[in-house]
Amino acid sequence: MIIDIQFLPSPPDPNLLSDRVVVVIDVLRATSVMVHAMSEGASEIMPVTTVEEALDMAKGFPRSSIVLGGERGSKKITGFDLGNSPKEYFTETVSRKKLILTTTNGTKAFHLVSLGKEILVGSFFNIGAIAKRCIELDRNLLIFPSGDEGNFSLEDTVCGGMLIQLVTKKGKKPIALTDASQCAQILYKRFEENLLEAFYLSHHGKELIHRGFRDDLVYCAKIDMTDIVPEFKNGVIRIH
Amino acid sequence: MIIDIQFLPSPPDPNLLSDRVVVVIDVLRATSVMVHAMSEGASEIMPVTTVEEALDMAKGFPRSSIVLGGERGSKKITGFDLGNSPKEYFTETVSRKKLILTTTNGTKAFHLVSLGKEILVGSFFNIGAIAKRCIELDRNLLIFPSGDEGNFSLEDTVCGGMLIQLVTKKGKKPIALTDASQCAQILYKRFEENLLEAFYLSHHGKELIHRGFRDDLVYCAKIDMTDIVPEFKNGVIRIH
Repeated sequence: MIIDIQFLPSPPDPNLLSDRVVVVIDVLRATSVMVHAMSEGASEIMPVTTVEEALDMAKGFPRSSIVLGGERGSKKITGFDLGNSPKEYFTETVSRKKLILTTTNGTKAFHLVSLGKEILVGSFFNIGAIAKRCIELDRNLLIFPSGDEGNFSLEDTVCGGMLIQLVTKKGKKPIALTDASQCAQILYKRFEENLLEAFYLSHHGKELIHRGFRDDLVYCAKIDMTDIVPEFKNGVIRIH
Repeated sequence: MIIDIQFLPSPPDPNLLSDRVVVVIDVLRATSVMVHAMSEGASEIMPVTTVEEALDMAKGFPRSSIVLGGERGSKKITGFDLGNSPKEYFTETVSRKKLILTTTNGTKAFHLVSLGKEILVGSFFNIGAIAKRCIELDRNLLIFPSGDEGNFSLEDTVCGGMLIQLVTKKGKKPIALTDASQCAQILYKRFEENLLEAFYLSHHGKELIHRGFRDDLVYCAKIDMTDIVPEFKNGVIRIH
């Protein structure tokens, strides 16, 4: 197995994607929200790129069966039910509902990698389960941090590095790491004892604190809260 | 001062470049060759992107006044005087000569950042001098690793990380690091005691060893061999 990680969220080569497992990561906060919502009983998630698309899609379902969630500028979108804090997505708000979600970086990323063989939703919340699933699938792996408005994201890469570390340690077959994967693994080891420190040092982490979301950072650094592996297929995320 | 590092060798935003100092790095081996050749007395270097361009340019000068250097597939180009090993570029071969150089990654990188305010040639050989010059220039800094055939390069990023470390430590003004710069600095600290280990772990380093250039790795890991700061301007590299 070859493990690669793409540091910038540009569209990967479609030929490379078609036989790979792709893990999309946006720990602050889109994929953390997704994993949290599904672990609390959301039936499926539709990640969409624009607010208009979310509102259009909502029209196709009874209002009570869906939840509109997401952010622009880190804040809840006018007219939406929920923002982009995982702690808003509990059983009471999402159980048995379809979640239509649009965020600045994370939801876009899924559409960039939609040609992947399997597309998994990764976060610290389910990192162990994701690693286990990657080992089972036994295909070449592309980790896809969603980035910070097109730029390299420290916190997503640390999470990608943890995934590399787990797959490398627990996998029984030989694993080859690209230069980028080695870098991510080293980055993870630097923050292994204190993941939250990486969040505090990151540009996006600082921005979230500035906007009043410090609690989200603390919460999103929790590991192995659930063993679900949400998978993106034909525009929809469901539990594998 | 803001220090950023671009992990992939794609053309940066021209608006961002115009007021920045750019440091191009290709330690294995183009910028190491450049710094070495200039420290041994080469009068100037013309980095060009293709073999044809190099041969065309050579026609404009008396043959004895120029040296044709570079590689394809790590090997010397047919009809060229020298390959891409720094140890080929000593006083006897390059003193007072114009060097026309074409390599797979490094020489291309200069043309991608040609709109930069100042464009410096960095390597471990002159890393201390480059750091000093960046502090003097006191502008926002973009470090530009040349990459490994379009991919992230471990060894160039470690060198970029060392530059970040030096500028951060020795500069007297406040410095802001992007997420990418923080990552490069952490990567450098991992290999601080043994730069050669980063070369051995890198994809391109392994490839060079496979092709018989192990000695070049050992040589290119030497730091502060010279205090020259070559600068790229209007297509030509000269000592500042």
